[in-house]
Amino acid sequence: MIRWIPEATDRGSAARAGRLQTDRGEVETPVFMPVGTQAAVRAMTPGQVAATGARIVLANTYHLALRPGEELVRKAGGLHAFMQWQGPILTDSGGFQVFSLKGREITPDGVRFRNEVDGSSVMLTPERTVEIQHALGADIIMAFDECTPYPADPDLAERGVRNTLDWLERCIAAHGDSSQALFGIVQGSVYPQLRKQCARAIVKHDLPGYAIGGVSVGEGLDELKHIVSVTAPLLPEDRPRYLMGVGLPEDLIESVQRGIDMFDCVIPTRYARSATLFTRRGRIRINARRYRRDFFPIDPSCDCEACSGFTRAYVHHLYQSNEILGTILGAIHNVRFYQRLMADMRQAIVASDFAGWKREFLEGYA
Amino acid sequence: MIRWIPEATDRGSAARAGRLQTDRGEVETPVFMPVGTQAAVRAMTPGQVAATGARIVLANTYHLALRPGEELVRKAGGLHAFMQWQGPILTDSGGFQVFSLKGREITPDGVRFRNEVDGSSVMLTPERTVEIQHALGADIIMAFDECTPYPADPDLAERGVRNTLDWLERCIAAHGDSSQALFGIVQGSVYPQLRKQCARAIVKHDLPGYAIGGVSVGEGLDELKHIVSVTAPLLPEDRPRYLMGVGLPEDLIESVQRGIDMFDCVIPTRYARSATLFTRRGRIRINARRYRRDFFPIDPSCDCEACSGFTRAYVHHLYQSNEILGTILGAIHNVRFYQRLMADMRQAIVASDFAGWKREFLEGYA
Repeated sequence: MIRWIPEATDRGSAARAGRLQTDRGEVETPVFMPVGTQAAVRAMTPGQVAATGARIVLANTYHLALRPGEELVRKAGGLHAFMQWQGPILTDSGGFQVFSLKGREITPDGVRFRNEVDGSSVMLTPERTVEIQHALGADIIMAFDECTPYPADPDLAERGVRNTLDWLERCIAAHGDSSQALFGIVQGSVYPQLRKQCARAIVKHDLPGYAIGGVSVGEGLDELKHIVSVTAPLLPEDRPRYLMGVGLPEDLIESVQRGIDMFDCVIPTRYARSATLFTRRGRIRINARRYRRDFFPIDPSCDCEACSGFTRAYVHHLYQSNEILGTILGAIHNVRFYQRLMADMRQAIVASDFAGWKREFLEGYA
Repeated sequence: MIRWIPEATDRGSAARAGRLQTDRGEVETPVFMPVGTQAAVRAMTPGQVAATGARIVLANTYHLALRPGEELVRKAGGLHAFMQWQGPILTDSGGFQVFSLKGREITPDGVRFRNEVDGSSVMLTPERTVEIQHALGADIIMAFDECTPYPADPDLAERGVRNTLDWLERCIAAHGDSSQALFGIVQGSVYPQLRKQCARAIVKHDLPGYAIGGVSVGEGLDELKHIVSVTAPLLPEDRPRYLMGVGLPEDLIESVQRGIDMFDCVIPTRYARSATLFTRRGRIRINARRYRRDFFPIDPSCDCEACSGFTRAYVHHLYQSNEILGTILGAIHNVRFYQRLMADMRQAIVASDFAGWKREFLEGYA
């Protein structure tokens, strides 16, 4: 099981610092979880992931159920043994991936879709996603929800909330007395009334943590801020709040300010693959010609392996030459950037000066 | 400068153990040098390369002259600083790459070819390759030789030797009193008389080391053994002997037995990219279906990072899922396999039982 211990709240905002206690160690919040979609954080060894300061990673139920299959992972001793990650792991429910597939069919029972690996027809239900996540054995597992696309009309959003609430009850029943922590997910698209209705119904289940879903689907920062502002205050003060699939540094800052504790996103590793690196002075495209003769590190303020000796000129050369080491160093740097961002936010919260920190950070980052 | 100190000779063969002393540390021989073609060992950080036990790496003059250009590397503080490799480095002359290009034109002055990066016409001469290698700043640099293709008629092979000898003199003149160590290269294709003629002329220059080139061009193990058997004994006892671009484990064993001290080859990293991994029981194709549920390490006898916790089933999954981590772990394992192979051969030489070790190794490896 897990437990979240509140530690400090910022004076001028809803930002909170805390500690997530798990059977596999403690995680300081707010926290960013690197994504290991297929049981591997793209282009990084588990040791390199841990060296960035990351203490918890996410893996994707949808991808792992298709390949290698959850039974194989269970036989391997679970996801921790399989991917050699000693810290806590969170698995999503697979819903987010399934709802974005072409031709998927949503029924009150669940979602039918075509298996992209072997072409077969597959049904994902609340019971099935819990079964898969039990076999994978993550510390935190997610309820099966209906992720409403953006934009969505109110009827579609309402059906999403209805299914999400029905399916949560079925997930809880299927979950039984498992020691894994099951988080519920609030849906409701951009509609405050639906978000509120959903949040109020979900928190009645007294779950160890709550997530805000249906974001990072193209709604943009303003809508995101709105959704979080409306939803976060309806979630219990003493439980961790997880904003799913978010996001860019700006998104994380605005969301922490509104009371979010947990994040996951593919951005740091995905951007690394396309040569976009994060620095305190904003994003840079390291394959741009201007970095050809630049002998500074990627980010002179960074302490990661990639910034300890390697120059922008070298990393530029690696990307220009299609050397895998470019992506490796880029991923190490970007994930470390995110970990430092979270640690800095946490420090600002503990010092109760989130607004001051934010102003300074965004000035440099702009 | 470098110096090679003989340490032991096998009783039953020409195999030798020694130490290559360089300004950047000592290297035990026989030694295998991983290849960092574009100033990066494919899919590995310098720390991961060093962790395999590798103490010296090779980089390619041809590739680096085209991109990023040797002047940029010089401005970066040389190759060691640029690629963050603290140990010794050897650069080739670029000849091997240039001779395999379509449309290249060989004259007594050098070789003209088309720059594959920007399309321009480039002339590579002995003076020019020395100039590039001076700018790169490797500890050991190679003379510009004419690498004869296989098969080659005696006239072509003879021209290769003639150019190689002329060009060596020009390399030595261009090299001046540089503190980098310039190695000469013996050519002569499969013709013993030409090899002997070339070797005898080259050793007169009293160079710090000698290489056998014109191998690893499709001649096969039998021809390779023949060439090495004929050539190695003509090289001075107290200088390191480097067999260029070789090879598979079997090739290394046969060549060490015949008195070779140094090797380089892209095989361990290239094979890793195509899912072929080396084990004490032979090569395996880790993406084969039989490894899907195999919970042993890649090689149970191996101590590398990839074999310390990760299973064949996991590595199989990574390759099947196109996860870069598959290639990373495969490269770490293969390079470590080669380093252990060299260390084991060295131990057998010091114990003066190379034949016994070889028999046992090949029995297991078959």
